[in-house]
Amino acid sequence: MKATPVKGTNDYLPKEVRIRDYLQEVILKTYQEGGFERITTPILEDMENLDKSDGGENLGLIFKILKRGDKLTKALDQNQYDQLSDIGLRYDLTLPLSRYYANNRAKLVLPFKCIQMDRVYRAERPQKGRLREFMQCDIDIVGTSSPDAEVELIHTTTKALMALGLKDFTVKINDRRILRGILSGAGFQEDEQDSVCIVFDKLDKIGAEGVAKELLEKGFDKEPVDNLIKLLDKEEITLDTVETLCGDNPGIANLRYIMDAVEKISSGAYQVVYEMSLVRGQGYYTGTVFEVEAKGFRGAIAGGGRYDNLIGKFTKEDIPAVGFSIGFERLFGILMEQDYQIPEEKKRVALLYGSGEFLDAMSMADKLRNDYQVALFEKPKKVGKYLDKLKEQGYAYFYIMNQSEKLNALD
Amino acid sequence: MKATPVKGTNDYLPKEVRIRDYLQEVILKTYQEGGFERITTPILEDMENLDKSDGGENLGLIFKILKRGDKLTKALDQNQYDQLSDIGLRYDLTLPLSRYYANNRAKLVLPFKCIQMDRVYRAERPQKGRLREFMQCDIDIVGTSSPDAEVELIHTTTKALMALGLKDFTVKINDRRILRGILSGAGFQEDEQDSVCIVFDKLDKIGAEGVAKELLEKGFDKEPVDNLIKLLDKEEITLDTVETLCGDNPGIANLRYIMDAVEKISSGAYQVVYEMSLVRGQGYYTGTVFEVEAKGFRGAIAGGGRYDNLIGKFTKEDIPAVGFSIGFERLFGILMEQDYQIPEEKKRVALLYGSGEFLDAMSMADKLRNDYQVALFEKPKKVGKYLDKLKEQGYAYFYIMNQSEKLNALD
Repeated sequence: MKATPVKGTNDYLPKEVRIRDYLQEVILKTYQEGGFERITTPILEDMENLDKSDGGENLGLIFKILKRGDKLTKALDQNQYDQLSDIGLRYDLTLPLSRYYANNRAKLVLPFKCIQMDRVYRAERPQKGRLREFMQCDIDIVGTSSPDAEVELIHTTTKALMALGLKDFTVKINDRRILRGILSGAGFQEDEQDSVCIVFDKLDKIGAEGVAKELLEKGFDKEPVDNLIKLLDKEEITLDTVETLCGDNPGIANLRYIMDAVEKISSGAYQVVYEMSLVRGQGYYTGTVFEVEAKGFRGAIAGGGRYDNLIGKFTKEDIPAVGFSIGFERLFGILMEQDYQIPEEKKRVALLYGSGEFLDAMSMADKLRNDYQVALFEKPKKVGKYLDKLKEQGYAYFYIMNQSEKLNALD
Repeated sequence: MKATPVKGTNDYLPKEVRIRDYLQEVILKTYQEGGFERITTPILEDMENLDKSDGGENLGLIFKILKRGDKLTKALDQNQYDQLSDIGLRYDLTLPLSRYYANNRAKLVLPFKCIQMDRVYRAERPQKGRLREFMQCDIDIVGTSSPDAEVELIHTTTKALMALGLKDFTVKINDRRILRGILSGAGFQEDEQDSVCIVFDKLDKIGAEGVAKELLEKGFDKEPVDNLIKLLDKEEITLDTVETLCGDNPGIANLRYIMDAVEKISSGAYQVVYEMSLVRGQGYYTGTVFEVEAKGFRGAIAGGGRYDNLIGKFTKEDIPAVGFSIGFERLFGILMEQDYQIPEEKKRVALLYGSGEFLDAMSMADKLRNDYQVALFEKPKKVGKYLDKLKEQGYAYFYIMNQSEKLNALD
């Protein structure tokens, strides 16, 4: 039997879990204090829902659950190999939330401000260092088109990041409607814009030349591609630059309102900048998109956007919504690199007992537990070596039944 | 698109999640104060590990993940329909822990006392009211054969149940070795005993006659079946009765030691009773098995036992281990039936603001958040109706910007 975990998944050691739990607790508390309420949705999701969710490249990364019994036999007998699965593992928390809202709307009040902190699954290539099972921490506001929702999400998410001691980060923001305006201006047809966006999203990684090359390879006309690349040559592209290019675009006023409000409310604790090339991978975003980047680390630690059409796929009437998600594994990675320490943890005591002393040790432990976190261990023959190991595990004190007079520091 | 969750899984509403989170927090804290440390393992598990895990009837209930790409094509092309999956969803937390210990033992100290609180998956029939995705809260002690481990698990698990206000429960205990002794005494061969146990486990549900009928149907000889049923006729079967039947059995001394110690340490807060028909479903149990039953509710709310051979399947050398698992969904169900209330929750305030008042409302909310949990809402046209809805959602107070003089109770 294989002792290693499934490719792309992790076992976490006790000291890692202590930190992961603490970080999640701080994020959850910040979200809750911000007036958001936690919900939970299943990890299993209807395969048809996932397929139709406009999830962009994630749709190719879905783990599918094999049908069982007669249903499986039937699919195999009839060679219906696209019918081997009707349930999948969710690739994000936004599609389940959209379904959840549709399913429970009679019991919810709009705007619905909710939290999801949970696992999602993507069959990424583990070679790239990407996990296939990972945590996301999302807040969403369902049922309002007001840009105040974006402001509240940015305020609350950055508050959580700061509560974890993260400094030096930047919120980047864009609006898909502006992006479409630019692409229209460059000469791309409306039905081409989605696939252009997916390539454009790689600008950070492959540069302007790389984007041009890939677009031409995909068969787009040279003229709009050239126009787009010419634009990228400009040193800095501001909302003003864009306004002269696209004219009157609802995305511009939207971003100005949000950036202005966030600037006021952040009191300079972090920067909010417009980034014309920000796309975000998901297909379901309709307006604002944003992400958080930490100084010195590539890639985003949080990302989100407005998805005004997704819930309507379930409810048949459009319900506007916007969400912001912390990529927990990336945040955890960054903080671990910075040797993160949990503030004010209860000190840990190892209580050693010999033969026949177990029940007394249990009583003693219960007393000490008011002030310490106490674990019981049978006294081994070589106590010295054992104490060294306990120290490695993070114990601060030890006490040997009927031998120690007080708690002894492990050092 | 389908708004309902996948069959056998649940969406949880905010008020349900508040209670679920609180219950889990109390359990986790009790476990941690008891000297156990939390670990996490992936929900995905190697299919071969699952298949060889001695999981009893659960092995038939595994959700399998469909292979992808070339691997899937190959299996289909060669009609290898048993090769469509190499990853499954775990059906419990014990098999993953055994793999985890083998994978990480260089970094762990024995005895290893650990917590897992997480989701597991079984393709149960939803008709029976059983969930297919559910939470278990496990503690395990790895690396000691001492029955003190059983005492510590029972003490810590019952402490968690009492911390949640559960009264009137009983710990039932048995030892698989005694059961085997009884079956030997009745005349069953050693290689028959596992399948007899699986039927015997249903005694509660189908009675002695049902057990006899099913055993005979399965082709067991009439004589040992009759002997077994005759034994069940006795009004009460105590450890003393059993001792006269099986003679010297290591399980008897083991149970006497544990029951005596638990009686001392529980100070009468709950009962520990020997139950000769207690089996527990899993095939991997080797010695002690136990469960907790709450008065007035059928079925167990917690269960566990000793599995001294499972970890050895990974490590090649036997490592004794014993675990106790709270069936969280059952506990949650019982407490909800009793109209469970979370003690001392921060009161919730709804802060309503009109056009142009958003930023002021954000500042006001931040001040109130020292003492309350505050959520912001845009002021609707019909405030009165909206306040009624907010009250239904559990808000205690409301405040309207530039209109209220103080917090107003919602009643």
